[in-house]
Amino acid sequence: GVRVTLIERFHNLLPEGLDPEMAKKVKERLEREGVALVLGDGVSEIHGEAGAKRVITGGGRVLETGFVVLATGVRASNELARRMGLEIGISGGVKVNSRMAASAHGVYAAGDVAEVRELLTGKPILNPFANTAYLTGRVAGINASGGEAELEGVLRSWVVNLGGFKFGAAGLTEAEAREAGFHVLSTVVTVQEKPVFYPDSKPVTVKLIVDSVDGRLLGAQAVGEGDILEKLNLAAAAIAGGFTIEKLLTLELAYTPSLNEVFHPLLVASDALIRLRERKSRKKGSLA
Amino acid sequence: GVRVTLIERFHNLLPEGLDPEMAKKVKERLEREGVALVLGDGVSEIHGEAGAKRVITGGGRVLETGFVVLATGVRASNELARRMGLEIGISGGVKVNSRMAASAHGVYAAGDVAEVRELLTGKPILNPFANTAYLTGRVAGINASGGEAELEGVLRSWVVNLGGFKFGAAGLTEAEAREAGFHVLSTVVTVQEKPVFYPDSKPVTVKLIVDSVDGRLLGAQAVGEGDILEKLNLAAAAIAGGFTIEKLLTLELAYTPSLNEVFHPLLVASDALIRLRERKSRKKGSLA
Repeated sequence: GVRVTLIERFHNLLPEGLDPEMAKKVKERLEREGVALVLGDGVSEIHGEAGAKRVITGGGRVLETGFVVLATGVRASNELARRMGLEIGISGGVKVNSRMAASAHGVYAAGDVAEVRELLTGKPILNPFANTAYLTGRVAGINASGGEAELEGVLRSWVVNLGGFKFGAAGLTEAEAREAGFHVLSTVVTVQEKPVFYPDSKPVTVKLIVDSVDGRLLGAQAVGEGDILEKLNLAAAAIAGGFTIEKLLTLELAYTPSLNEVFHPLLVASDALIRLRERKSRKKGSLA
Repeated sequence: GVRVTLIERFHNLLPEGLDPEMAKKVKERLEREGVALVLGDGVSEIHGEAGAKRVITGGGRVLETGFVVLATGVRASNELARRMGLEIGISGGVKVNSRMAASAHGVYAAGDVAEVRELLTGKPILNPFANTAYLTGRVAGINASGGEAELEGVLRSWVVNLGGFKFGAAGLTEAEAREAGFHVLSTVVTVQEKPVFYPDSKPVTVKLIVDSVDGRLLGAQAVGEGDILEKLNLAAAAIAGGFTIEKLLTLELAYTPSLNEVFHPLLVASDALIRLRERKSRKKGSLA
């Protein structure tokens, strides 16, 4: 094994993808695996030769290490586009319409360099993931060759698999939803993936973020060892389909005890949100 | 191990849930596991003592066996409802409205005894599965205690797990969709669950059934060793959400190579269906 120290400038891991209470689950898991975490402190200097590096953080920590892996974020490589005189969006990506057509006739952009729209807010963003590269590439290719295809927006669906421990999200985080002006209601539920009489039954944690006015699903996050991809992709379809928590709660999903529980975690969370909303509106009533 | 012979009166396994080409995948797997299959032939007689039974089929086959397991279908136990004078539906289940209220005031029915509506056709059916019992029980309970809840219909989502080999469906089979009057287009795709450079990458087979007029998803079936539940529950949400294959094809799903492929099997199938529809319309055009 290799002793690992993870330095993150933000106070939470994955601040753009997970809300703090979900990021905490990932942090706890990393710590249990023996990863040392330095949060809220950035790297300011790296010295030394290969095999003997010294890392100095902004907060003054000094770490001696064999090697350093850098992950410093993603920026669109828009130089070619600039030189071509193409319009660049506020995200730094090439500005395109829903057909992935850039500002010059006959030019299309796709993948990490193209600015896309977040489906729920319409906000122009970069979404440098393989799935988006695939979707935008397909649309750009069809249109460039004379066909007709459109991409309305992206959900920023993502999943990470750390040796069987998985986490990911689809749609807006709670912070983003509030920032976008939604009246947000959210809940986190932890339930067993399948009935407890299965020795390999594991807990799964799901967070749902909804609009408290119309009950529409805005975002979902999931963490655990079970079938996290299933929860995230189901949530992605529900978000893209404009599902409310009431609609989710009557969605008939497949069930067999050796794979899952009869009351799906997303439905458990929807039920909790409906009760939460009722309690809140009753409370408001009694104050009036 | 126990030597097993499976006798099925119909010519395909699970004729109400899987179309023949998908049922064939299940048949092949059972045969590979050493299960002897007798299809298209029913049991007409069972003789003998515990531990020494003789089974005689309608076709005249004679099988000597240690024990017999019977699975003879499900019928609603509606006797109490009849004695109460409640209206019984054509399925044999207690007739209820979307609030699960039976024909007499203050009486609700839920679970295997209650007739539900198939979501896409509105057809009254029995859907004797745990997930439906849960959904109908919840709605009946809320309404019986003075609340308000409704269940529009069911998708008949189901999944079976045979020691890691899974199969299931959501929505209409192709046969049912045709019978219901839809202009049906369907395809079956077999793709690798995750990139082939993973030694545990397994094939998964997905069938999509869509309306060829508006492209709306009507049903899905999936078979394989991978994450079949994920495909089925995603399909269930897409069916309930009224998704077309065009909408499915731009749905951004989570991806990480250790779990799945970047182009989701449901999107691969949607793409295939869009091409199939184009070829068909071109062919029609050239004949005109």
